[in-house]
Amino acid sequence: MSVTARKVETLRWRDGKLDMIDQRVLPAVFEYLSYDSAAGVAEGIRSMVVRGAPAIGVAAAYGLALEASRLQGSSENEFRQGLETGIELLAASRPTAVNLFWALNRVRRVWSGLSGLGNAAVAVRLLDEAHEMLAEDIRINRAMGAFGASLLPDGARVLTHCNAGALATAGWGTALGVFRSAVEAGKKISVIADETRPFLQGARLTAWEMVQENIPVTLITDNMAGFMMSRGEIDAVMVGTDRVAANGDVANKIGTYMVAVLAKRHSIPFYVACPLSTIDLTVPDGSAIPIEERAPEEVLGFRENQWAAQGVSVRNPAFDVTPAELVTALITERGIIYNPSSESLSALFRSEP
Amino acid sequence: MSVTARKVETLRWRDGKLDMIDQRVLPAVFEYLSYDSAAGVAEGIRSMVVRGAPAIGVAAAYGLALEASRLQGSSENEFRQGLETGIELLAASRPTAVNLFWALNRVRRVWSGLSGLGNAAVAVRLLDEAHEMLAEDIRINRAMGAFGASLLPDGARVLTHCNAGALATAGWGTALGVFRSAVEAGKKISVIADETRPFLQGARLTAWEMVQENIPVTLITDNMAGFMMSRGEIDAVMVGTDRVAANGDVANKIGTYMVAVLAKRHSIPFYVACPLSTIDLTVPDGSAIPIEERAPEEVLGFRENQWAAQGVSVRNPAFDVTPAELVTALITERGIIYNPSSESLSALFRSEP
Repeated sequence: MSVTARKVETLRWRDGKLDMIDQRVLPAVFEYLSYDSAAGVAEGIRSMVVRGAPAIGVAAAYGLALEASRLQGSSENEFRQGLETGIELLAASRPTAVNLFWALNRVRRVWSGLSGLGNAAVAVRLLDEAHEMLAEDIRINRAMGAFGASLLPDGARVLTHCNAGALATAGWGTALGVFRSAVEAGKKISVIADETRPFLQGARLTAWEMVQENIPVTLITDNMAGFMMSRGEIDAVMVGTDRVAANGDVANKIGTYMVAVLAKRHSIPFYVACPLSTIDLTVPDGSAIPIEERAPEEVLGFRENQWAAQGVSVRNPAFDVTPAELVTALITERGIIYNPSSESLSALFRSEP
Repeated sequence: MSVTARKVETLRWRDGKLDMIDQRVLPAVFEYLSYDSAAGVAEGIRSMVVRGAPAIGVAAAYGLALEASRLQGSSENEFRQGLETGIELLAASRPTAVNLFWALNRVRRVWSGLSGLGNAAVAVRLLDEAHEMLAEDIRINRAMGAFGASLLPDGARVLTHCNAGALATAGWGTALGVFRSAVEAGKKISVIADETRPFLQGARLTAWEMVQENIPVTLITDNMAGFMMSRGEIDAVMVGTDRVAANGDVANKIGTYMVAVLAKRHSIPFYVACPLSTIDLTVPDGSAIPIEERAPEEVLGFRENQWAAQGVSVRNPAFDVTPAELVTALITERGIIYNPSSESLSALFRSEP
């Protein structure tokens, strides 16, 4: 699939700016917001105009390219300091997904290799790299999709949590990319989507993507997954991830751990679609992954509708950690890793071509 | 505690009518709706003006008393048929909680014992019975509260799901009644409240009740309970129930099962506050308990705010079943039943004084 043929262009380069679908207002409103600086993109990531580990990685790369373009008329020193500040701003936007740091490290390496080139040439090269990362993300999603689709029997009813779809990536999806690939391969599947409080990525984004694809999708509240499993109405679980530790522990959207525990109890396979860029070998296990706590207003209601009793305290962790023992398999662009462990993950990287 | 000293008068008899707090609009609006017929009360139960197994049982008894008062000028035949129709309407209002059927059976027995009395005398007697059931519900909650409080260590952080509070009963609460009794006994406890989608009884009602009582309460979304347990931040779970089967299986608000599975994994005690009127020996196990499915709009959003993608299918089971093996103990007004089973529950009823 060419990049331009994407059905859902989460990120789009146009007229020298980065357009991002505003995922806070989907599905009621479908609109792009335009960004022309690293600070703008960082704020877009923080406020969740764009979300999803792979998507924010690519967005961050564009953010730095925009900054380079914006500052290309500056002195060499100002240019360098401006890009450093841009990297800092982008890195501080959200703490849990490792793809953000992976992407920033990658563009920094490219930048480091360009010493001696003028500002304008650096800006062009950083933009090329962002374009390449976007195209590569889709190729990787496609490869994972093919591996993942092989795991789903025809007729499978698959639960997913949050949105690991085209909207969370450059345009195909990790978990939802597997569904797209399964359907493309001629399989009938149906999707059960957890609504995913508090930001409602399941109700708003996953449901929207699946309706657009004509893939049957049933929405439930997060507390209904156990009921559905106990009734034999779920055959597999497929989720994305924001960071996988060296031992195979999986950080993903809050609630993923509960789904994994239930899947184990009901002997339902629990799959994680996980590009290699999401595996962080520098973190030994899940306890070392920072978990973002977000604003209380998200839990007290949704948008302007604040329904909770006044005076109540709130916790709002955005992610949780699923221990590797609950993961049936990680699906990467290089193949399927059953029963992930420190041994299998380090072997995966040793085999890097 | 006298009935008039209730802090939260969920149900209130005034000027010959039943007033019920409209729980659909709490906590933003605190107002009573007035009812003067069985059909009205049945609609109030169906639409969840009043909810909670014990509360709808008492409300149904008032509903029949109202119908008797309303029809007391009719012929004996019309009166009898009117009450039969009233019982049918009330019984059809919600299917899962057994207290509704328990209450209707109880008032029917009273009515059956009054043959030969005139309509007006029957109406007076049915109203007396409803008043007695209300007062008795508070006494029972108080007794359960004392037993339950003995299970909570000082300083306990207790997770609860849905609202099994004053608003779900005649005025003290089952699960939240245990918290009130623990605090009354001088214990410090803090409550973690699941918001309880889709109707948000936790965010709106439990949080409101606990704030009113100055009991520290922290609101989380339903998918955060596993995270809190994995961090060691929950010491016990305390919930109510809508029906307990003869083998100890517990039907309660959707999501209770997920909490129970997680509590088991983390070796956290899982307690169910359960008046004897909630135990249904005619149902052998949880699979025979009817599970109400409610309207899709509840899952597609909250009230007028419908946020989900158009075209998505919906499931909306209002309850689930927690198998007895996951229940540490049932707390009844007659004592604590550890590891509930067919044997222990039938023994409980054989010992009835």
